[in-house]
Amino acid sequence: MKQDAIEVVGASWVIPMTESPEEQDLQPTIIENGAVAMRDGKIVEVGDYASIIEQHSLEQTASSHTFFDDQILLPGLINCHGHMAMSLLRGYADDLNLQNWLEDHIWPAEARLVSETFVYDGAQLAIAEMLLTGTTTASDMYFYPESTAKAAAEAGIRCNIFFPILEFPSAWGGGPQEYLEKGLALRDTYKQSTAISIGLGPHAPYTVSNASFEKAVMYSEELDAPIQTHLHETAREIEDSIKEHGCRPIERLQQLGALGANTQLVHMTQTSEQDLAILKTQGCSVIHCPHSNLKLASGFPPVSALQRANIALGFGTDGAASNNSLDLFETLRISALVGKHLDEDAASNSSYRALYQATKGGAIAAGLENLTGSLDIGKQADLITVNTRNIGMQPLHNPVSQLVHTAAGKAVSNVWVSGKQLVSEGELIHQDAQELVEKAQRWQRTISEADGD
Amino acid sequence: MKQDAIEVVGASWVIPMTESPEEQDLQPTIIENGAVAMRDGKIVEVGDYASIIEQHSLEQTASSHTFFDDQILLPGLINCHGHMAMSLLRGYADDLNLQNWLEDHIWPAEARLVSETFVYDGAQLAIAEMLLTGTTTASDMYFYPESTAKAAAEAGIRCNIFFPILEFPSAWGGGPQEYLEKGLALRDTYKQSTAISIGLGPHAPYTVSNASFEKAVMYSEELDAPIQTHLHETAREIEDSIKEHGCRPIERLQQLGALGANTQLVHMTQTSEQDLAILKTQGCSVIHCPHSNLKLASGFPPVSALQRANIALGFGTDGAASNNSLDLFETLRISALVGKHLDEDAASNSSYRALYQATKGGAIAAGLENLTGSLDIGKQADLITVNTRNIGMQPLHNPVSQLVHTAAGKAVSNVWVSGKQLVSEGELIHQDAQELVEKAQRWQRTISEADGD
Repeated sequence: MKQDAIEVVGASWVIPMTESPEEQDLQPTIIENGAVAMRDGKIVEVGDYASIIEQHSLEQTASSHTFFDDQILLPGLINCHGHMAMSLLRGYADDLNLQNWLEDHIWPAEARLVSETFVYDGAQLAIAEMLLTGTTTASDMYFYPESTAKAAAEAGIRCNIFFPILEFPSAWGGGPQEYLEKGLALRDTYKQSTAISIGLGPHAPYTVSNASFEKAVMYSEELDAPIQTHLHETAREIEDSIKEHGCRPIERLQQLGALGANTQLVHMTQTSEQDLAILKTQGCSVIHCPHSNLKLASGFPPVSALQRANIALGFGTDGAASNNSLDLFETLRISALVGKHLDEDAASNSSYRALYQATKGGAIAAGLENLTGSLDIGKQADLITVNTRNIGMQPLHNPVSQLVHTAAGKAVSNVWVSGKQLVSEGELIHQDAQELVEKAQRWQRTISEADGD
Repeated sequence: MKQDAIEVVGASWVIPMTESPEEQDLQPTIIENGAVAMRDGKIVEVGDYASIIEQHSLEQTASSHTFFDDQILLPGLINCHGHMAMSLLRGYADDLNLQNWLEDHIWPAEARLVSETFVYDGAQLAIAEMLLTGTTTASDMYFYPESTAKAAAEAGIRCNIFFPILEFPSAWGGGPQEYLEKGLALRDTYKQSTAISIGLGPHAPYTVSNASFEKAVMYSEELDAPIQTHLHETAREIEDSIKEHGCRPIERLQQLGALGANTQLVHMTQTSEQDLAILKTQGCSVIHCPHSNLKLASGFPPVSALQRANIALGFGTDGAASNNSLDLFETLRISALVGKHLDEDAASNSSYRALYQATKGGAIAAGLENLTGSLDIGKQADLITVNTRNIGMQPLHNPVSQLVHTAAGKAVSNVWVSGKQLVSEGELIHQDAQELVEKAQRWQRTISEADGD
């Protein structure tokens, strides 16, 4: 399509997700027979399909316009936390608690396997799964972030990459100083990119020293770069911190100046009243990974309390080794279901609330609200359509309910990032899915042989 | 195919599910490059694909033999509780607690809508969804059970139908006596059927009198017919019973002689130590509907305690109005995830345990263990294959993990019930899915008009 050409995508229901549940109560705005017009990768109009077509005399021009009947058009989903390369370890070690899972299975496997190629191939697989299930913005924290960035840039997905910082050597580098140098160099490489942004990923309080946290904070402030860290994932993490540092991990991070509007705290399954007060005053975001937290029996954050306290909340899938799926629609469904149970209130954790957290709310938590997360004029055209013409999604009494409580991720039909179409009729446009499957199968054999099976 | 002909279906992994996790520990038997041979609708052999082909000289005969590469072959799943017709109310009223949901939304809608046609069309839709997602045995409790039985018999799914008994009149009948007469007549109609069995469905302690329970028990004993009832779904049900009857509902049912090996208790989200003792001595089954219980914030049964007490446990989806999906693979995944969380033990609720409860365990709970639930010689050939050649299921390190923790229900490729193939390459063979979708869409408009929207 030529520069400046308008492309109009219409659908039976357009859900712009421009307002939060607090602003709009109960139900989000739904435009029946609506449309989004895009130009130069950005959203230029949202409204009634017929009016937009008529206004631009699109019937008479060569500009593209398509209407998707029985489909729902909404912003692409925001996955705020993951470890893409770990898709190659999907189901590798199940039914184990976090400590045992990490120390006896995942870390030894990683020590044998992790390389530039492992990370690139794993990221390709993860990105394909995310695009096919409607995620247009991903997040990553893993070794060889250069490989992840390359895979993301090639595939066209939007991505916040947090290069890892920890005290231990890995195949990627010898320690925190080398990680910082390599990560900051990567940040320079992508400084002009709209799609790829590079932030700092001090791994967790139990793997990062005070000195390294302070250095990360210094660079974050100097460069206005976001920080993401795992925090309060398990009760044991907190006990250990109290023993070693005399305080809860969040207090330690506060003392180190590591909490602020640019900081994203992943997990927070253990959040006391006092922790909540710290979160409120410091303005950091919380990334909720319900699937991973349940599967590893790590705990569950007090989602409704965090919402009431106006903490910016996003969803993460976490890595596929602890989930075992990167379909964010599944994440929002399970979060809504478990949230209702824990609140003992079927009216809490509404479908609207879950969908908001996966779109505009997630974009705010990820610091990307100016770019994506809702169908607002001027934002990047990150859109998806979900085709409801299937047995499991019919009848359709409420489009938002269908998105959250049926398998919408498996019904994603079209995906655009910055106006570029990446998925059409449920298939990747620019990649051969069967080739990716075969590559993953080769990795399975390699991993199994390395285990000496 | 001619009578007596052998049909052999092979797959990369065959999981017979013949042993419980207690008998086999940790991992179920998996036959690599295995096969099932069927004749006259029954399983006649389970073993190595090449050996079975050679033994019967199948290369030289016209008998059918097919090998499904990268696929998993396992027994079809057993859905032990549902209300099929309610699929037409999928997403009709969400984010409401059970009492409000039933009294202000579902019951008024049913009063306006329920008819022979509503039930038949809803059951057709539900059966299509279940078959497509790998369920070969369903269960139902709803008005006009004749319509459900007709839809099930036509579609070829195995089905335990519990005709409803309650004190209130409905479109189907004037009260308990008429329900009993109609239900028993239906039982007579299907007495020769292997696929359709008719049991008694006294709805719940709060809708059924002592006299009606006693009558149901009498017929159950006389006819050796199973009973299914909703029990201890919410805390309020128990409080109300203590006020009205001076005891917990399960104690009332015990006094009425309604608990026994032929009785299936659905929900049991509230199970005290004393309730557990009653369950153990009486030998009844418990049907666990995790999705519905979470969505309605009804509570969650102590699954691991029930398992340790050797209570026969099956899964139910419940109706699609409170789920909102009849994909039983989703049910076993969420049960495993939430079970781990509630036990605070990532090793509990293993994938094997969940899969067992959805197959052989469910068949035992439903009283069908002689017919279905595992790949045992002599059982009905109720089989499914799951195609793992997709991005979300690769790499495959562990077939059982993939079945439970990725979206296996969306990858079901072939389904046989009593040796008759009903799904091929993910499509219904004997029904037009698009016609069912259009019929559901017409019901959506009818329901919306009846609401005066």
